Amino acid sequence: MKSHDFQQFFEQNRPQIVRDWCEYLRFRSISASDEFRRDCEACAAWLASYLASHGYAAEVIPAASNPLVYARIDVDPSAETVLLYGHYDVQPPEPLDLWTSDPFEPVERNGRVFARGAQDNKGQTFAVLSAIICLKDRGLLRTNVRVFIEGGEECGSPGAGECAAAHKDLIRADVLMICDSSTVSLDVATITMGLRGIIHLEVRLTGASKDLHSGVHGGLAPNPATGMSRLLASLHDERGGIAVEGYYDGIRRPSPADLEKARTADVDDYSYSSMTGVLPVGGEKGLSFAERRGFRPTIEINGITSGYQGDGHKTIIPSWARAKISSRIAGGQDPARCLDLLKKHLQKHTPEGLRLEISGDAVGAGALLLNSESRTIKKAANVLRELTGKEPVYLWEGASIPVVPALREASGGEPLLVGFGLEEDNIHAPNESFSLEQFEKCFEYAALLLSSW
Amino acid sequence: MKSHDFQQFFEQNRPQIVRDWCEYLRFRSISASDEFRRDCEACAAWLASYLASHGYAAEVIPAASNPLVYARIDVDPSAETVLLYGHYDVQPPEPLDLWTSDPFEPVERNGRVFARGAQDNKGQTFAVLSAIICLKDRGLLRTNVRVFIEGGEECGSPGAGECAAAHKDLIRADVLMICDSSTVSLDVATITMGLRGIIHLEVRLTGASKDLHSGVHGGLAPNPATGMSRLLASLHDERGGIAVEGYYDGIRRPSPADLEKARTADVDDYSYSSMTGVLPVGGEKGLSFAERRGFRPTIEINGITSGYQGDGHKTIIPSWARAKISSRIAGGQDPARCLDLLKKHLQKHTPEGLRLEISGDAVGAGALLLNSESRTIKKAANVLRELTGKEPVYLWEGASIPVVPALREASGGEPLLVGFGLEEDNIHAPNESFSLEQFEKCFEYAALLLSSW
Repeated sequence: MKSHDFQQFFEQNRPQIVRDWCEYLRFRSISASDEFRRDCEACAAWLASYLASHGYAAEVIPAASNPLVYARIDVDPSAETVLLYGHYDVQPPEPLDLWTSDPFEPVERNGRVFARGAQDNKGQTFAVLSAIICLKDRGLLRTNVRVFIEGGEECGSPGAGECAAAHKDLIRADVLMICDSSTVSLDVATITMGLRGIIHLEVRLTGASKDLHSGVHGGLAPNPATGMSRLLASLHDERGGIAVEGYYDGIRRPSPADLEKARTADVDDYSYSSMTGVLPVGGEKGLSFAERRGFRPTIEINGITSGYQGDGHKTIIPSWARAKISSRIAGGQDPARCLDLLKKHLQKHTPEGLRLEISGDAVGAGALLLNSESRTIKKAANVLRELTGKEPVYLWEGASIPVVPALREASGGEPLLVGFGLEEDNIHAPNESFSLEQFEKCFEYAALLLSSW
Repeated sequence: MKSHDFQQFFEQNRPQIVRDWCEYLRFRSISASDEFRRDCEACAAWLASYLASHGYAAEVIPAASNPLVYARIDVDPSAETVLLYGHYDVQPPEPLDLWTSDPFEPVERNGRVFARGAQDNKGQTFAVLSAIICLKDRGLLRTNVRVFIEGGEECGSPGAGECAAAHKDLIRADVLMICDSSTVSLDVATITMGLRGIIHLEVRLTGASKDLHSGVHGGLAPNPATGMSRLLASLHDERGGIAVEGYYDGIRRPSPADLEKARTADVDDYSYSSMTGVLPVGGEKGLSFAERRGFRPTIEINGITSGYQGDGHKTIIPSWARAKISSRIAGGQDPARCLDLLKKHLQKHTPEGLRLEISGDAVGAGALLLNSESRTIKKAANVLRELTGKEPVYLWEGASIPVVPALREASGGEPLLVGFGLEEDNIHAPNESFSLEQFEKCFEYAALLLSSW
């Protein structure tokens, strides 16, 4: 069956699919606050029931925070198994006054459905779930399917990794399919080939027991604001590289072929500057845009606080200084080791006379680096080529989805990250929407993929 | 007349002097807020009237902010002239709930008078004014006297320098006497031999037009928090010295004799650490405590703000970073040139891709460095030796009194800074007080000095 056939099917069944999708969108499944715990539970129950009534074996799995929805379709014990990961929880809708319509009362305008979660991630996941139902009903599904949809992704997936590890038997799979990412444009599809890992910590330097007069004590008391500047400056070298000893150990450099692929997603200086207001001159000198974003670690200062914060002047030597630091971890780096090296560096470079405290140090995740020559990626590329008529873009992203490495570990499935989000969807912002065209692309991609395995 | 005689005189007249002093303390002459403008005007009028009724020719001089009190006593055209500088304005009394008694209703407890301004500066100045009245009444005054008491010192002496410059003829003097400082203890007197100057500015680095996702943009967008750290770190070298090119030009090193004198006011590491909670390891390595405080410039970071300031983590690349910087200027340095060098340094070291803005840059004052071999200082030392029976301490202070260089310039008088403040006076804090013993010391010092000129 070809893309054309799935288009036809979607056209015919669209009203019902959109009605069901909109019912899913009506749940206020906000994970950020306990206030919506019941809405989340109702949403999970509805989704399990929906899947059960469409041919899945479905259940709700209780978890430490919101429950998970697990479902399965077995077509053939000898066939490969695809695990679909997604999340039914959504971001809070605030600020409400910026919404044109109620965030939990989906409406269709100009070919787009507006609602919180319309894209992220209820929309994209529902398109895939619908495609699987379509294939099953027609006897076209060529893989066994496992579904693992959590209710806490928007607040850091608490307990999702542990739940996956505790249910390895349920989620064992050959492919871990995720539809929660974006495409560079709707004309070409995008395969996410990498995600960076993340670690973070907070550092505090304390000097005197209170702010001191900068005249009386200047030249005598060590200044924590000056000390913090020097400590943070020690993290990088003159060429923008990380100066923490041993930090680059183990990093996998991309193959020339991957780097070539990665560069197709590059943005030129002018476009980047138009988008952000700044030239892309950060990171290590001498490396390309794509390599710096996808294949290299960073240490970023996320915030600094010290001393007088108001208008005008106050001539003090501050008592303390604080910095929030996070580091993106590249493929091949051990995030726990990186955190350790970073802490040792901070200890070693603490200026004389000041007391160092490190808190909130945590390993979010390691990096994900996929093999562009793998059978799964090649199969997806073939399908996407058929879908759009164009070569897909391969994107090594700089961001992190901490649950993915844990799910890969627990399921054994090779991650496959293809999504159809666009900037204009306004995810995490007022007036989130997903176009029927994007929904359909997502539906067709899944249908083509799972019917041709 | 000897110290003993003045003690006797003070004992006899104490009740009336203390009553008058307390009347002076009742005015809410707070300069920080326009709300107390009338109180300040009433205070100035009272003081001028008081001086006029005690043998001074006195007047109130209107100024841009609070008026000044000017008064004079001429004894002999051929005698030298002493200009007494002081201020009748006081710090706000807040927090009021920490005061044991009303800050503007002076009360005597255990030999101390408690009130806002009891010491700083109504108390110390009133003691000197009373001594002058005593000398004049007895025909013992050996100098002409000019009095210049402003009402804005606690908020930076706005317009005081200009007012002095505009009335050079009124304030021309041989000695500029100031009683607004502290003594290391009441057993020994302290001569302030130096004050550092001050310049300040605010620096802002801007990157992207809004905070960016540190994963998506990490390694691409330059980070203003990191850039600010590197920029601020560039201000000092590894040994705590200032790395701004040319900054040390012109600095006068103290003579071995002055340095020897200065070291008598040193504090040992243990005492300093008990007092501040930190060891005195700031400033330039290899220089003594006294030299670093009194004879060397500093560049201090008074505050830094960038990015996320709350609890936990937020993985952003901040859009901007801001730092408040001030620099204490040593004797021999040109403060305007230092400000210029500092600004050039910041411009030169601005990290690539970030936009630098400098604001609020101002020259507060240059340094004051007195000659310990001068006739005035030697005369004061003799008087203080007579007063206490001990060699006075010579203190090169690290702080700044910006109006002093301007008054020295306008009056031509050699500054003489001797004060009797103590840590326990709680100036600028709740329960400010001045003991009758301190008041009397101050009275006797002025009486001895001005009767023996």
